[in-house]
Amino acid sequence: MSRWNRYWMSTLVVVLAVAFAFYLHTTNAVSLKRASLPQGAEEIATARGLSPDDVEAALKTYVPSGKRDEYIMFASGGHSGQVLVIGVPSMRLLKVIAVFTPEPWQGYGYGSVESKKVLAEGNPPNGDKLTWGDTHHPALSETNGEYDGQYLFINDKANARIAVIDLRDFETKQIVKTPNMVSDHGGTFVTPNTEYIIEGSQYATPIPYEKYAPLDKYKEVYRGLITFHKFDRKKGRIDESQSFQIELPPYWQDLCDAGKKVSEGWVFCNSFNTEMATGGLGEGKPPFEAGASQRDMDYLHVINLKKAEAVVRAGKTRTVNGMRIIPLKTAISEGILYFVPESKSPHGVDVAPKGDLLVISGKLDTHVTVFNFDKMMNAIKNSDFEGKDPYGVPIINYKSALEAQVEIGLGPLHTQFDNEGNAYTSVFIESTIAKWKLGGAYNSGKDVWTLTQKLPIQYNVGHVSCTEGDTVSPGGKYCVSLNKWAIDRFNPVGPLHPQNFQLIDISGPKMKILYDMPIGIGEPHYVQMIRADKLHPWSVYPKVGFDPGTMLEDPNAAMPGGERIERKGNTVEVWMTAIRSHFNPEHISVKEGDKVMIHLTNIERANDATHGFAIDGYNVSLSVEPGESTTAEFVADKPGVYPFYCTEFCSALHLEMAGYLFVEPKK
Amino acid sequence: MSRWNRYWMSTLVVVLAVAFAFYLHTTNAVSLKRASLPQGAEEIATARGLSPDDVEAALKTYVPSGKRDEYIMFASGGHSGQVLVIGVPSMRLLKVIAVFTPEPWQGYGYGSVESKKVLAEGNPPNGDKLTWGDTHHPALSETNGEYDGQYLFINDKANARIAVIDLRDFETKQIVKTPNMVSDHGGTFVTPNTEYIIEGSQYATPIPYEKYAPLDKYKEVYRGLITFHKFDRKKGRIDESQSFQIELPPYWQDLCDAGKKVSEGWVFCNSFNTEMATGGLGEGKPPFEAGASQRDMDYLHVINLKKAEAVVRAGKTRTVNGMRIIPLKTAISEGILYFVPESKSPHGVDVAPKGDLLVISGKLDTHVTVFNFDKMMNAIKNSDFEGKDPYGVPIINYKSALEAQVEIGLGPLHTQFDNEGNAYTSVFIESTIAKWKLGGAYNSGKDVWTLTQKLPIQYNVGHVSCTEGDTVSPGGKYCVSLNKWAIDRFNPVGPLHPQNFQLIDISGPKMKILYDMPIGIGEPHYVQMIRADKLHPWSVYPKVGFDPGTMLEDPNAAMPGGERIERKGNTVEVWMTAIRSHFNPEHISVKEGDKVMIHLTNIERANDATHGFAIDGYNVSLSVEPGESTTAEFVADKPGVYPFYCTEFCSALHLEMAGYLFVEPKK
Repeated sequence: MSRWNRYWMSTLVVVLAVAFAFYLHTTNAVSLKRASLPQGAEEIATARGLSPDDVEAALKTYVPSGKRDEYIMFASGGHSGQVLVIGVPSMRLLKVIAVFTPEPWQGYGYGSVESKKVLAEGNPPNGDKLTWGDTHHPALSETNGEYDGQYLFINDKANARIAVIDLRDFETKQIVKTPNMVSDHGGTFVTPNTEYIIEGSQYATPIPYEKYAPLDKYKEVYRGLITFHKFDRKKGRIDESQSFQIELPPYWQDLCDAGKKVSEGWVFCNSFNTEMATGGLGEGKPPFEAGASQRDMDYLHVINLKKAEAVVRAGKTRTVNGMRIIPLKTAISEGILYFVPESKSPHGVDVAPKGDLLVISGKLDTHVTVFNFDKMMNAIKNSDFEGKDPYGVPIINYKSALEAQVEIGLGPLHTQFDNEGNAYTSVFIESTIAKWKLGGAYNSGKDVWTLTQKLPIQYNVGHVSCTEGDTVSPGGKYCVSLNKWAIDRFNPVGPLHPQNFQLIDISGPKMKILYDMPIGIGEPHYVQMIRADKLHPWSVYPKVGFDPGTMLEDPNAAMPGGERIERKGNTVEVWMTAIRSHFNPEHISVKEGDKVMIHLTNIERANDATHGFAIDGYNVSLSVEPGESTTAEFVADKPGVYPFYCTEFCSALHLEMAGYLFVEPKK
Repeated sequence: MSRWNRYWMSTLVVVLAVAFAFYLHTTNAVSLKRASLPQGAEEIATARGLSPDDVEAALKTYVPSGKRDEYIMFASGGHSGQVLVIGVPSMRLLKVIAVFTPEPWQGYGYGSVESKKVLAEGNPPNGDKLTWGDTHHPALSETNGEYDGQYLFINDKANARIAVIDLRDFETKQIVKTPNMVSDHGGTFVTPNTEYIIEGSQYATPIPYEKYAPLDKYKEVYRGLITFHKFDRKKGRIDESQSFQIELPPYWQDLCDAGKKVSEGWVFCNSFNTEMATGGLGEGKPPFEAGASQRDMDYLHVINLKKAEAVVRAGKTRTVNGMRIIPLKTAISEGILYFVPESKSPHGVDVAPKGDLLVISGKLDTHVTVFNFDKMMNAIKNSDFEGKDPYGVPIINYKSALEAQVEIGLGPLHTQFDNEGNAYTSVFIESTIAKWKLGGAYNSGKDVWTLTQKLPIQYNVGHVSCTEGDTVSPGGKYCVSLNKWAIDRFNPVGPLHPQNFQLIDISGPKMKILYDMPIGIGEPHYVQMIRADKLHPWSVYPKVGFDPGTMLEDPNAAMPGGERIERKGNTVEVWMTAIRSHFNPEHISVKEGDKVMIHLTNIERANDATHGFAIDGYNVSLSVEPGESTTAEFVADKPGVYPFYCTEFCSALHLEMAGYLFVEPKK
């Protein structure tokens, strides 16, 4: 072997040895790094056509059996009238809470006295029986501007009502029919310590709406309203005796938001149709959509809540249907109401986390407008007004209030925030979420007030909502794009398509879509996402014989040993207990026409040991959770033999958990 | 260099070269194989605490944005009264179909004449107004024993009713109140070509149940019933004039199944409480759960449907409430009804894919019992009976009908099948799914009729259902364990817990849990899973002016150009169209007390361009899909000004899609 040959051989050996060592090292490294990936992961991904982004999304959203979601999302259910509870990031529907619409699985409005009372309280005094609602904006109760996990409020746009849900048992405790208003949209929003629940009207009517007035009296008689519902946190109920309203011009008020931190004590609502168009398509007049879109600007309503409270205390109100109203003239003269011009027909007004800035989105505009609260206050102080509206409301000089405008795309609607000074705006017409950088106290540098990313969504986003993204301390982890149309995103289920909630990862520098969740039960409008560890719901009721209506022990609860049937005149009263797998008593004999009251207690203490109670043919369905005491009331007006049974598959012998109601016919 | 050295060097070179080549090959292979895994997949899995099994499950269930699920699951909604439509494997809720309970998002029962008609048809003749149901067993229509994707049927246990859903538009078209029966459980099941929808009663009552009889007449007067509802596939409706019932002893009949292939023309129902216990806890008597569990055996009901049809044709029936009933004595004398002893208090009777075997599960038993259809037929032919029940029904010799018993665990309930001769049985008390191997025509060898795997589930499984697993050709891909209790599986949402649908991969040799889906809207009992490509729903209605009630063009539909308002006496009739973003007309003026009829057509042709129609304060909510014509009817009994609006976020100007109903008060 020549010297050259020997050199060549040695070199080759060294190269190959290094390569071999590297091979071993790499192989080892791969197997270490891949410790948590299963054999065949690649094959599964390939077989199912998953892209690397899909795999990442799958791994970021999958929540294994028994593990918990990090955030809980409360979504309005739109015209289903309910509230949806969804785990994030898994996007699993954990519960539908019955609110405005009777729902038999929860026994809500199907014979139980407590739920009947809640639903009946929500009816207007004119005798209406309302059995649905159009829920729009859920609002979690807040302490110091942060979600505290105690209560959830939700409005009914169709009938101007507010519901209170207690997050100890996730049940609706109260429905308030707001007097004088027939519809709302700007609700619910809470003040930073939940002193008030804010509800702004939508379509102008006479006040009250039950007072007919023809349309040619529109400017004189029709009005908007904003209601401040006083919340009694200790009782967990709205106290209408402490609530009040402010009369507004007959513009169509839209979303509101409460000031916080520096702007606490102020409330902001936007409006559209300051044209005061009254429609009339079919009568040779322009339709609302055209008539209400003539002017370039509408008015942001800037409301001094603290001053309004003082004016109410001073008795400078008139009372209609039991509700105190600050007249529009008083609101003006007392310095409660100001306007700022805002881009045409805006959807959202969103107060930034520090309370210093307000983001307005004109839905036919291409940019968001940012107002500065301090500048507004200075303008008010200095009477820096550009005029008055036809009703005399002072209009703050637009330029004096302006902080910035950011070009983000056509059709901006709503804005949320993260913990790094970014804002996220839904853009309806373009079907995108725009991420942009706040300036002011949030960021410095040349690139503030600029768009940083546009993310296409599928399709037609309404609200965007981010983790605690409307509070003083946003989470900065996820946003959800609440898309109104799904079109081709899911397997077809007929002409009525689901909506599409798209979960977006905002934890990295770029937004990424993680998940498409179909919503095939209602048309949600807005959601709030709270850290799951802030919620502390009960798994069972605290004591046996507990009344969810009062959230106290029920002195008349049926208790073990006290089961009995008593007749007083034409009323048959039954004290009944339920435990796996029987009711006690099992036979109820009544006469046709008797009033029957069944006090039923579920005496179980185990988690999830719910019993249902249904009476065949009598339209009665109760859900009685462990410890709960409830009462069913009905008239036994149909003779015959009617079994009753437990509707929950509670045990191996659940089909045997039954009894008979015997209704003897009148002679 | 010595010869040895040279040899050694050459060998080393070859070894290293091979190693290097292998390294290159492997690296290349890895990069190819891992093409679909993203950078950082391991880190995400590690950070989120995902095990390799979790990762596998995530990859097997995630369905990316815009991709379709492979199967569609139709789940009963339990006492929510509705049907859930779920994508598999993603386990996403695609839609809730309103069936027995009014639902405003779908405009079902909130003012539309069509849905009011469907709901009203489902009321008993005694004037009851039923507004909920307890849905139990969905049944897809079948052709030759396979799902054909045309219709879905569902029962209401609480009131003995059957609903028909058309899978072209996923809407409920008919509700039939079954005469004479007050409750059902053994429904719905269809014969292999959907000639009949089978519905067995649950709790015995007098026939009819409206005829009161005291409990001491139980054995004489109380009876069970099975109803064969004739389905007119062309009309898509049940034809009650062709339906009939068979009187049964007052045992509590439970689930049924229709024979198929070799057993086509026969129907099987099981029963419990052959003790004829009548309960009486509270009166010193044993409760139902004890009284109904005394005997070791109950009776499988074996029904000759072909013979029953002939007997009905021959007029050997009595008619009660318009329904023809084959009297129990006739059913016996004509050879229509036989019994086979079955293990105590069974839940499921499940016919195997070839129709040759029946699997029975005694819910307090530890094994499943398999009967052989041919053996039963032989026993009947040879009068191989072990006696008669107290009503004279011949009891087939148990051992003569028996094919096998398989020990699977305590509390077996329901059984489904795959395409490889395996059976899957839910085991309630043990909280497992048991996989076992069929013998007979399905498998040979020593290990047939043996348990092959037990999979723990969380918790308390009722039904198990597998992909097309109750048809003549099971899919063999997934099963779902329908768990009644979730307990700790999900983030807590109050004392009423969701259920837990667990998706199971059965494509490999071992079952594996892939996904936990919370069900927080109802308590589903059974599901069927159909291959998604068998469904062909409409995305929009076929023509503008289409009436979903008749599935035909509506001759009275409002059409573009024909919008108008006409008054006839006290009736105001409106022909209105809806298109983005206006209604035409926009003003409706009526007088207090007028009857108002609004014929509303959505003249859109775009997918997903649904318009809602709500009238504030009037409890009216319609959902009008593209092409649909519907009619709202109400009495304008409240004076005042009531806006109406589109409840769907249909366009950027959806808030402007509104109008006014003016109700002038009576003088």
